[in-house]
Amino acid sequence: MNRSLVLSIDAMGGDHGPGVVVPGVAIAAGRIPQAGFLLFGDQAAIEAELARCPTLEGRAEIRHCDRVIAMDEKPAQAVRRGKGTSMWSAVEAVKAGEAHAAVSAGNTGALMAVSLLLLRMSVPMDRPPLVVSWPGHKGVTTVLDVGANVDCDAERLVEFAILGAAFHRVAHGAARPTVGLLNVGSEDMKGHEEVREAHALLRAGDFDFDYRGFVEGDDLSKNTVDVAVTDGFTGNIALKTAEGTARYLGAELRQALTGSLLSTLGAALARGGLLKFREKMNPPPAAPLLGLNGVVVKSHGGAVDRQFADAIGVAADLAQSDFAAEIERNMTRLTAAVAEQPPAVDGAAE
Amino acid sequence: MNRSLVLSIDAMGGDHGPGVVVPGVAIAAGRIPQAGFLLFGDQAAIEAELARCPTLEGRAEIRHCDRVIAMDEKPAQAVRRGKGTSMWSAVEAVKAGEAHAAVSAGNTGALMAVSLLLLRMSVPMDRPPLVVSWPGHKGVTTVLDVGANVDCDAERLVEFAILGAAFHRVAHGAARPTVGLLNVGSEDMKGHEEVREAHALLRAGDFDFDYRGFVEGDDLSKNTVDVAVTDGFTGNIALKTAEGTARYLGAELRQALTGSLLSTLGAALARGGLLKFREKMNPPPAAPLLGLNGVVVKSHGGAVDRQFADAIGVAADLAQSDFAAEIERNMTRLTAAVAEQPPAVDGAAE
Repeated sequence: MNRSLVLSIDAMGGDHGPGVVVPGVAIAAGRIPQAGFLLFGDQAAIEAELARCPTLEGRAEIRHCDRVIAMDEKPAQAVRRGKGTSMWSAVEAVKAGEAHAAVSAGNTGALMAVSLLLLRMSVPMDRPPLVVSWPGHKGVTTVLDVGANVDCDAERLVEFAILGAAFHRVAHGAARPTVGLLNVGSEDMKGHEEVREAHALLRAGDFDFDYRGFVEGDDLSKNTVDVAVTDGFTGNIALKTAEGTARYLGAELRQALTGSLLSTLGAALARGGLLKFREKMNPPPAAPLLGLNGVVVKSHGGAVDRQFADAIGVAADLAQSDFAAEIERNMTRLTAAVAEQPPAVDGAAE
Repeated sequence: MNRSLVLSIDAMGGDHGPGVVVPGVAIAAGRIPQAGFLLFGDQAAIEAELARCPTLEGRAEIRHCDRVIAMDEKPAQAVRRGKGTSMWSAVEAVKAGEAHAAVSAGNTGALMAVSLLLLRMSVPMDRPPLVVSWPGHKGVTTVLDVGANVDCDAERLVEFAILGAAFHRVAHGAARPTVGLLNVGSEDMKGHEEVREAHALLRAGDFDFDYRGFVEGDDLSKNTVDVAVTDGFTGNIALKTAEGTARYLGAELRQALTGSLLSTLGAALARGGLLKFREKMNPPPAAPLLGLNGVVVKSHGGAVDRQFADAIGVAADLAQSDFAAEIERNMTRLTAAVAEQPPAVDGAAE
């Protein structure tokens, strides 16, 4: 495809497949005039959807794939038997240099495993950190790792900071993103050895972001920093705790608002406001797989067309930025900071 | 004091001092007929409050203390200069055998430091875990450690399970509390080495509770288990994340309900329900300091009299239970389980 920006799309991924993906591509095509799209998946199903999207004429090519990776397939299985599926082929197009970025709303674990196998990591970590855009009082905070890398030493945490800051700059236009390290308090001597060492490295290194020190759990929804860094164990538990809290409060609210005739009537009148409130609790539409040799973006499985278009927008922005160069630059600075590392931080955990 | 149950009370602690503590004691005295109370603090201030609580006649003795530990005093300072304060003296009465349990609504860090110094730990850990009663869909889950012990090996996590289960049984009347270990997934190979080893020990040991395996962050507000165990780093971040999420959603809800005339009117009508909802988000009234040679209960600093009485109730229940014996029994079983520990669990983190 002869376009300055080519995006490869897993047309079969997500809860709705081509029925949402193709209209999402049409919305994205309107927003990104220079982009062309490679649509991987079932030819007939995609053609049927394309017929309803005349604006994609000449902008999209179908690449037929017989097979699909199921939403519940194990990552190991996806790696063994995924070749030729729509997801695999979409990522492969990035590897082959045919596309600048890939987007899928499919099985997250499979997408991560396939991307890792085909593209390999550009940074020294086992797998891409899971990234979440955490909603809060002042916008969103990019939080990572929320589950992929469970054991993290100090350097790994600094690598998350580098990846997260590069992503946040592109996705949210922050010239010099602020970065915080998740901890149990803000004083230097708080926390375990890994966070205290990472804190020292982040202060010592000359990175392309503004390191602000330690932040705490409630700083995530306060949006105190643009990027909050933590290990995949703590991050996963924090994320699921927040989701659980939101669900619990939602249920309590429903109960409180239907407890009496008066409150039920009030809730009916306030319906518009309550719906807006519920929308705020929806999962974010796009998460990048960071640290690969190539851009891959995961769209939420239940995304609607507009949200899938948002995920394509993130992929396009990453592909067109100097994202990869910035990461490489900062990785070199991390190596320098480690070489000049001050004597190990000591002192009790609290 | 010649009573079968004597409770020593820091009458000066909390945001309101004797003005809330003494009425709280009066409520507790009505609920616990066998109890007598030692009230530590300023004689004149306590006498003025006692004059309004005739039911405490003959049930309460004032022990005058000139000094008070301030709410913002550092724990180290409290330890150095706290002797003779109301908090110190209340804990000292437990050490001296004059009282069966102590209750304070004062400075948490100071109460922990002073209790640790005077009573010492009965279990091999540096300091009492912070315990929180986590509200959720089906009641409460006892969660520990939410911040005191940041570095935890497998045995420490099992010790938290032992302490938490003993507390939950007394505080919530569960004959055989269910216990879960907080992790990033439910399969055996998930998580880091410490949780996998603790999982093996909890399954191998013959403890007085029902170990249910791994639970995840959203299981806290689902109340999937009675007791959820985690290290003080993860627990603190989970707790503060939940608090932050609740505050954020509260603010969003307020905004959504005042966004239009109709929703404002609706919110006014639903006021009763919304107030009930807000009450659910209040901090729990009482937290025990577990693992000491003696019972100490922290009441929330902003507690009202009824909540302070609840904290006294928890202290009385602990003092009258076989709580300490149960902990000792299970600690012996942990030692046995460690001795028979299966070969180290291996396998990747995920």
